[in-house]
Amino acid sequence: MTARISDHVDGRRLWRDLIELAGFGATDRGGVCRLALSQEEIDARAALVAWGREFGLHAAVDPAANLFLRLEGLEPELPPLLLGSHIDTQPTGGKFDGAYGVVAGLAALRAIAASGLRPRRSIEVVAWMNEEGSRFAPGMMGSAVFTGKRRLEDIAAVRDKGGCSVREELDRVLDNERDLQQRPLGFPVAGHLEAHIEQGPLLEAEGRTIGVVTGIGGKRTFRVVVQGQAAHAGTSRRAERRDALVSAVAMVDALQRAIWDEADTVRFTIGMFSVEPNAPSVVPARVTFSVDLRHDSDEVVRTLGDKVSVVCQSARGKCDVTVTPLLYDPPLEFPAAIRARVRDAAARLGLSQQDLPSPAGHDSRYLHYFCPTGMLFIPCKGGISHSEDESITPSDAEAGVRVLADVAFELAGQA
Amino acid sequence: MTARISDHVDGRRLWRDLIELAGFGATDRGGVCRLALSQEEIDARAALVAWGREFGLHAAVDPAANLFLRLEGLEPELPPLLLGSHIDTQPTGGKFDGAYGVVAGLAALRAIAASGLRPRRSIEVVAWMNEEGSRFAPGMMGSAVFTGKRRLEDIAAVRDKGGCSVREELDRVLDNERDLQQRPLGFPVAGHLEAHIEQGPLLEAEGRTIGVVTGIGGKRTFRVVVQGQAAHAGTSRRAERRDALVSAVAMVDALQRAIWDEADTVRFTIGMFSVEPNAPSVVPARVTFSVDLRHDSDEVVRTLGDKVSVVCQSARGKCDVTVTPLLYDPPLEFPAAIRARVRDAAARLGLSQQDLPSPAGHDSRYLHYFCPTGMLFIPCKGGISHSEDESITPSDAEAGVRVLADVAFELAGQA
Repeated sequence: MTARISDHVDGRRLWRDLIELAGFGATDRGGVCRLALSQEEIDARAALVAWGREFGLHAAVDPAANLFLRLEGLEPELPPLLLGSHIDTQPTGGKFDGAYGVVAGLAALRAIAASGLRPRRSIEVVAWMNEEGSRFAPGMMGSAVFTGKRRLEDIAAVRDKGGCSVREELDRVLDNERDLQQRPLGFPVAGHLEAHIEQGPLLEAEGRTIGVVTGIGGKRTFRVVVQGQAAHAGTSRRAERRDALVSAVAMVDALQRAIWDEADTVRFTIGMFSVEPNAPSVVPARVTFSVDLRHDSDEVVRTLGDKVSVVCQSARGKCDVTVTPLLYDPPLEFPAAIRARVRDAAARLGLSQQDLPSPAGHDSRYLHYFCPTGMLFIPCKGGISHSEDESITPSDAEAGVRVLADVAFELAGQA
Repeated sequence: MTARISDHVDGRRLWRDLIELAGFGATDRGGVCRLALSQEEIDARAALVAWGREFGLHAAVDPAANLFLRLEGLEPELPPLLLGSHIDTQPTGGKFDGAYGVVAGLAALRAIAASGLRPRRSIEVVAWMNEEGSRFAPGMMGSAVFTGKRRLEDIAAVRDKGGCSVREELDRVLDNERDLQQRPLGFPVAGHLEAHIEQGPLLEAEGRTIGVVTGIGGKRTFRVVVQGQAAHAGTSRRAERRDALVSAVAMVDALQRAIWDEADTVRFTIGMFSVEPNAPSVVPARVTFSVDLRHDSDEVVRTLGDKVSVVCQSARGKCDVTVTPLLYDPPLEFPAAIRARVRDAAARLGLSQQDLPSPAGHDSRYLHYFCPTGMLFIPCKGGISHSEDESITPSDAEAGVRVLADVAFELAGQA
């Protein structure tokens, strides 16, 4: 009979840790601004290390500043099981996106420690570096580098809006954590489990507690640069202007029409749109905007993505336009065996559940190609995420940890 | 017979000063970024003070950081004549917008000093504080406060994007210039002359050297704030989004159609457009954009300006919108007597000339309601301004100063 590690989950401590972690980078409106590799994140990492040490976890860090908190197993030479997510947030993010998965992992290990049982394999909580990608684009940098999808040298050169590089900030974080054990990138791992808030409305709408994530939808992103010419707002005639904003607005409008789907299954977002010099009495010289396109069907993602450059060129007017593809992640499906374990654990605990896909990307995307990987979701209020209004309930948070703890102990016990 | 001060204008020194001044805040692409009350402007002001002291000008400053360089007249108790413009620039501005008028004033005083003649009234070169309004909006702050159009307390509270206030920066500038004579706001003046680059294509197209400015066109400006709600780009459905960028783009499109004029005489510009949180994978929560509307006809400016709020409301979709009127300046006409003096001086010097209006605003707008005011233009290449590509010729620059010097000496000699 399988041990019920879940009986030892401390829901109150879990909630206290979630709220305390949200204090690092707390905003006035109840959200969190804890950008990747920022001082706020450094402080939050120190708190995680301290919380882990309270019950004997060993902290380690790799060259990409992925942070590991290890519960030693009975056979420490075996590749460990990872319970990973991230603690960086969007600029006006919420308390739970990413943070829940890391704190849930910590709570699961605390439950195992409290049970008096020891897993065969070691289990490690991981906080992957820069999942969000809003300070340094694109996101999921830590998991991409760990799994060999990207090279450390390439991400190191990325700079934020203020000109600060990932290299500089990595050095700062790693210097601050020089006393932790140093780990290589890409060491062998037995599997990866990620608990996360749904960031969508399905579980809440259906009144279910646990989402068994079937896979992650496809995604393509682009950067569009529209080049016009600065001119005086009072003197230059419309006919002689090369107004980058006018052309960019025409492109956005044309893209919306080209990508429109009646069924509302395509996720199309222009989240970043920056104007230069951005002064009221100067005709804009340049606009840079992002295109984010997602769908469960690889064919839809590919077909619509192929339109982006064509549509922007046709709507460019008197300006020049450059469309740069940044990322193409095809849809993926998690292994049936792990999904079944999540489903069974929830059933044993009497928790309502359903299968559902993740339209959002997660670090589990890159781990999936590296080791057996699975995800579970808990509901979030109104499906709202990437927003200061993000909200979950303590009982859902605890339920997710109970499933996670039981599945983790099972997987770590396997040969 | 009128003295020919213009014979003493030193064209080479004029050009050297223009190029040297452009070194304060020089950009890589040949332009200037010398924002109002910045360190670059503080350094440039110190250079102006030093250049004036070389030939006996006395420097003074008022509480709005308007900088005065005075050539003492024979009757120093009489209100002085002012030769004013500004030395702050747009973020990617050129070498000559504003700077030309200040350096031309200095060159005119240098010519008077070199002539051995002395004017009856004192003549002062003025660098008005924050004409451009791109760091602290709206612009023409120094002249507005000096002439009583606005109150110092009100402009002092304005903050830049970084949260820094006009008050803080005024204190910094005034502390740096504490050794200069302190002047009150709004002291009596005999008149105001402003030399400026045309910032339009007419003089160049007609092959003329001097523009006799008939007046300044009307202008209305607005700030539009579109409030939606942040959401996750991967999970939130189009139907449930309140995307501030989608609504703002619809407003810009609707405004363009509502304000379109076949004759291309209306100047309509959206120069500032800022998105929050401005992250690729977050549905925009808020967009703030500027509307700048100008025309020679007061009726056109009023009628079209009245449409802005109505059009934005009708295009707001699922977001909220607030339209705040910032500025309404009706068209104005400079006194015929001053225009005639500019015209006559140019004719005596054998310089080609034409009357033309200024669609752009200038400090002379506010001085016009305070004292007899006039302006003269010199050509600028391609009519391009508010751009790093701004360009004028040394001979046009010198011609403008010759007219300015003769007219200034005439006006200062009057009872």
